Amino acid sequence: MNTSLKQQVFDANMALPRHGLVTYTWGNVSAIDRDRQIIVIKPSGVAYDEMQADDMVVVDMQGKVVEGQYRPSSDTGTHLALYQRYPQIGGIVHTHSTHATAWAQAGLSIPALGTTHADYFAGDILCTRPLTPQEVEQAYENNTGVVIAETINTSHPLHTPGILVYQHGPFCWGKNAEEAVHNAVVMEEVAKMAWIACSINPRLRLIDTHLMNKHFSRKHGPNAYYGQH
Amino acid sequence: MNTSLKQQVFDANMALPRHGLVTYTWGNVSAIDRDRQIIVIKPSGVAYDEMQADDMVVVDMQGKVVEGQYRPSSDTGTHLALYQRYPQIGGIVHTHSTHATAWAQAGLSIPALGTTHADYFAGDILCTRPLTPQEVEQAYENNTGVVIAETINTSHPLHTPGILVYQHGPFCWGKNAEEAVHNAVVMEEVAKMAWIACSINPRLRLIDTHLMNKHFSRKHGPNAYYGQH
Amino acid sequence: MNTSLKQQVFDANMALPRHGLVTYTWGNVSAIDRDRQIIVIKPSGVAYDEMQADDMVVVDMQGKVVEGQYRPSSDTGTHLALYQRYPQIGGIVHTHSTHATAWAQAGLSIPALGTTHADYFAGDILCTRPLTPQEVEQAYENNTGVVIAETINTSHPLHTPGILVYQHGPFCWGKNAEEAVHNAVVMEEVAKMAWIACSINPRLRLIDTHLMNKHFSRKHGPNAYYGQH
Amino acid sequence: MNTSLKQQVFDANMALPRHGLVTYTWGNVSAIDRDRQIIVIKPSGVAYDEMQADDMVVVDMQGKVVEGQYRPSSDTGTHLALYQRYPQIGGIVHTHSTHATAWAQAGLSIPALGTTHADYFAGDILCTRPLTPQEVEQAYENNTGVVIAETINTSHPLHTPGILVYQHGPFCWGKNAEEAVHNAVVMEEVAKMAWIACSINPRLRLIDTHLMNKHFSRKHGPNAYYGQH
Repeated sequence: MNTSLKQQVFDANMALPRHGLVTYTWGNVSAIDRDRQIIVIKPSGVAYDEMQADDMVVVDMQGKVVEGQYRPSSDTGTHLALYQRYPQIGGIVHTHSTHATAWAQAGLSIPALGTTHADYFAGDILCTRPLTPQEVEQAYENNTGVVIAETINTSHPLHTPGILVYQHGPFCWGKNAEEAVHNAVVMEEVAKMAWIACSINPRLRLIDTHLMNKHFSRKHGPNAYYGQH
Repeated sequence: MNTSLKQQVFDANMALPRHGLVTYTWGNVSAIDRDRQIIVIKPSGVAYDEMQADDMVVVDMQGKVVEGQYRPSSDTGTHLALYQRYPQIGGIVHTHSTHATAWAQAGLSIPALGTTHADYFAGDILCTRPLTPQEVEQAYENNTGVVIAETINTSHPLHTPGILVYQHGPFCWGKNAEEAVHNAVVMEEVAKMAWIACSINPRLRLIDTHLMNKHFSRKHGPNAYYGQH
Repeated sequence: MNTSLKQQVFDANMALPRHGLVTYTWGNVSAIDRDRQIIVIKPSGVAYDEMQADDMVVVDMQGKVVEGQYRPSSDTGTHLALYQRYPQIGGIVHTHSTHATAWAQAGLSIPALGTTHADYFAGDILCTRPLTPQEVEQAYENNTGVVIAETINTSHPLHTPGILVYQHGPFCWGKNAEEAVHNAVVMEEVAKMAWIACSINPRLRLIDTHLMNKHFSRKHGPNAYYGQH
Repeated sequence: MNTSLKQQVFDANMALPRHGLVTYTWGNVSAIDRDRQIIVIKPSGVAYDEMQADDMVVVDMQGKVVEGQYRPSSDTGTHLALYQRYPQIGGIVHTHSTHATAWAQAGLSIPALGTTHADYFAGDILCTRPLTPQEVEQAYENNTGVVIAETINTSHPLHTPGILVYQHGPFCWGKNAEEAVHNAVVMEEVAKMAWIACSINPRLRLIDTHLMNKHFSRKHGPNAYYGQH
């Protein structure tokens, strides 16, 4: 059961170490099957180089394991909260990638500074507010998802497909698991560029709005002309 | 047709990921055949590890595809504008390499700070002015080339074979595609060094003029004595 | 004799270059057999790619070689001092990893800024006071261990399993050699993140206490739910 | 003739790209045979991956080629000036390694900040004064060596086996070519650490003198106890 989706989620998880986004077992990717109302996600704390496609865990929308021998990622509650809130999202990835996590620790949104950013994110990559002690104590992972959704506050979550959780790290998403990982790779790169750019010129300006819109729309708009599709 | 030039352009494109200058499908290299008035360029949005020499796209000087099954790079208009303006240029490369792009986002020219820079670039690597909303809206890629040419403003474009487009990233060139990529690798390295040097000593000085001229001329001048030629 | 422990210590030492924590022969890992009151440690100044498990040196609790053809690591005295002071420690690693060493040179503790840190270290990673000229002159390596122990000053050394020695570099530990190396990898990564985060926002705040406690306890507390155990 | 020394110099040159110290053909290593009064050095501008041991160039103490089909490195004059001035030096290396070069561009000595530095360099790694226009115009490479010697100004050049040439980059040396490269690797690493440490704490202090002397002498002093010798 769910062989194809398990393979997709496995492949997307294995892309994380290949792109240098994770240390040890950090990070996790999931995908949802909306028809069957299940999500497939990485098992918790399992090493990437010992993991197989069949080790992916299937959970229902309440987070109950319905298939698989392992516990699901400890962040499953956050994934579920985002899938429930946003029907456009098909895949989610969480990492502690170095530069994106540094922005989350700095407590600042990653500013949109150039076309590299605008090719994928139509605006700043926001940083959430701190979670309250109560939100951390009870249902912490679910509340993380709730606070992410509160911060996104848009009907177009794929237009800025990622966010920073304050003092924690990045979550990215996409229409499927592969695209979510793609966005995570891009976020890490733009986080690094933004750090360096701000270091070179602390008084630099945000990208001009017309340039941001041009780049996002030539790649993702109705008249997109980037790529072969 | 154009098999040899396609191979050269393909090889030059494949050097980009090998030198760590590109993420995913970012970046593109072209070369021109001035006799036949055609340019060969990377197809848009095609992954490097799936690309073959025969996938390179041949376009005429108006950007019309004359050979190849793919759409050419979305940046083709910029390449064409530069080839038309500067007969000395035989190859062009565009990347979003990390440190050069950070300088472009910072909106600052890369200052000539040492002999590493002066061995290839006879002065600062300039950053263009912002494009206006009108220049972005209509014929964006061609206008990018026009603004680059306006910024270079020299009859010796090979003396400083690269530039930063404001809030976008670097374009480099050379007498052919291979040399253009070589200059892009060097620009990324001097961009990184300049960031670190300015971080170490914000009040550092530009390279002494006599030292810059000595290094550029011992490598590229009429009495050059670097190398075996 | 001691074949199994030698193999563990050898494997842990070989993980250092694989994780990019050492240059040349820098760094050393040891483990203790508390029943037999011996420790096994890397030989001094031997290259990693020429080293074999049988080259590990066995010393008694006074640092006298009891097995092996090589001199033990010059830092053996520091390892011994820590094993003697803390019965919970089973393995120790010392490196000059780039970012952790930079914090030691800066003379500052690595502040707990995010969950990546809190998943392994339940508070700041402290920097010791300077050693006095007397402490450096006589029994230098033993005194380094004494000053580390003075700085830790806790009955739970595994709650913050690492420290910075002022103007020198990091020491990490764990319940065995493998875990000590794991903690050294994590310390280097959080040292890098903390540098970048402080560079992005010099006025950032320490991680909220409730968030730090949540992350440390969900991984290491009595009701831990991270991983498969 | 000179087969053994050519092999040593070739091996030392090939270590430069392996340690990430050079881009393209940058960098060069030489060694001297004091009995025969010849030096062996890398040919100018030849790619590392196409170079063979027999391509090394043999020159006499006036820089005249006495064996080999290639031109010697354009920096040969600097190597010769150092060999002539310091009989203790047996091998020399020049690179444009990223972080050491950034300090040279910043125009500042690399401060001795920790034991990593003191294990190899018994004090700051000095930066030379600027060369005058006259020194650059005539006999530039020889004058670079003269200014290095003027800056070292010691009878123990192996105690701080490297220097930064202002706005240019590092030169390192040792008792042979292999040791010179070893010192170049270490200098690049301490240059990186010093940049990061100064970024973390701009008001950090130089390493305590007693700690610096202890580390240098336990590795290089008459009673050295690091390593197996």
